[in-house]
Amino acid sequence: MSTDAGYEPPPPPALLFDLDGTLVDNVYQHVIAWRQALHEAGHDVPVWRIHRRIGMSGGLLVDALTREIGTSLSRGEAEALERRHGAAYGEQRESVQPLPGAPELLARLTEYGVPWAIASSASPDEVGPVLERLGVPDAPLVTSGDVAHAKPDPDPWLAGAARLGVEAETCTVVGDSVWDLMAARRARALGVGLLTGGYGREELERAGAYRVYDDPSDLLRHLDEVGVRPSS
Amino acid sequence: MSTDAGYEPPPPPALLFDLDGTLVDNVYQHVIAWRQALHEAGHDVPVWRIHRRIGMSGGLLVDALTREIGTSLSRGEAEALERRHGAAYGEQRESVQPLPGAPELLARLTEYGVPWAIASSASPDEVGPVLERLGVPDAPLVTSGDVAHAKPDPDPWLAGAARLGVEAETCTVVGDSVWDLMAARRARALGVGLLTGGYGREELERAGAYRVYDDPSDLLRHLDEVGVRPSS
Repeated sequence: MSTDAGYEPPPPPALLFDLDGTLVDNVYQHVIAWRQALHEAGHDVPVWRIHRRIGMSGGLLVDALTREIGTSLSRGEAEALERRHGAAYGEQRESVQPLPGAPELLARLTEYGVPWAIASSASPDEVGPVLERLGVPDAPLVTSGDVAHAKPDPDPWLAGAARLGVEAETCTVVGDSVWDLMAARRARALGVGLLTGGYGREELERAGAYRVYDDPSDLLRHLDEVGVRPSS
Repeated sequence: MSTDAGYEPPPPPALLFDLDGTLVDNVYQHVIAWRQALHEAGHDVPVWRIHRRIGMSGGLLVDALTREIGTSLSRGEAEALERRHGAAYGEQRESVQPLPGAPELLARLTEYGVPWAIASSASPDEVGPVLERLGVPDAPLVTSGDVAHAKPDPDPWLAGAARLGVEAETCTVVGDSVWDLMAARRARALGVGLLTGGYGREELERAGAYRVYDDPSDLLRHLDEVGVRPSS
């Protein structure tokens, strides 16, 4: 529908969310679990370098870290590392909480009739309990099993948009890592950053964030800045 | 001694180092230990907010975090929290390693005859085993017991300079957190940042870093940029 002013109004908003570190507070538990897994396999990687790779798929993370420490792993060794990480993370799973405002933010979008979905690089097994804890067990969802490549490839955002029946380039996507925002640019979506993953504001802006908020509750207070309104 | 060109040459370099996160890789272990201590005391603080307060003294950190979550603690509760943190950190102590290049960097400075000291916000009890692990048990040292206020107050850097018999304003100080760099500015010292504490490069630059390096080994490769030469 064209307006009298002769332009097509923008489509109604739709939001796609990363999960780990964006809606739930588990980045640092993942960091410590990777440190432990790598150490047990004989690789001591400085912990900040692990932190900066969280949000990639496990496979890409292992490839990137082992390249940085100047070694390479067989497929079997990499898979063993992912299993060790899963076990070490499992020991800390009970400490994982929703981030402030995350359930309220999702509820507000639903109340407003704004379509939203979750696009995670994690596996369905890992994602299920987290969605339970967030109170949205039936959320529209994309996991690692649904896509050919994880972030920073655009596939998770593209698949999330498809799940909602909208174009990725009309979506606002929300994530805590530079990988989320790089994937957003490749999907031609609008990327919004949250500080909840432990990246600095400027890192997220440099990676292409349209806007950076502290956490889901801060985004909830500023939804008008990303075009979300009660009437939409 | 004046030069023929009519100016006083700058004094020979002296370096002051933060310890936790700057020379040893223990920031994330401290983060997780504070999360656990706060949780046990009934305070669930998002973990990234804890991360951003590491490098302050324990007391200031507790004050800042409890203020952020909108509560306040009695002196006794705060001390109990510090004890819980100490116990939780102790369980992870064995996983703490020197950061890449840290022992080599200190050895190079000694070889060059450049005075250096360590100025930490931690207690003497905590610092001792870390210095052992770094191979410098007898390093010139300032700890929390030596100063009236910890970083971001300038006292640790001022006391470190005094330990070396030099003026703080002629020192280069090296740290991984914005608190180190804020304290550097208040001490009128030149601050150098390292990424090893998990802050972003731009955060450290904005806090006043003259230069930011990845880690001690990266600083070692670029010592000429901070005025350290073999002949000095």
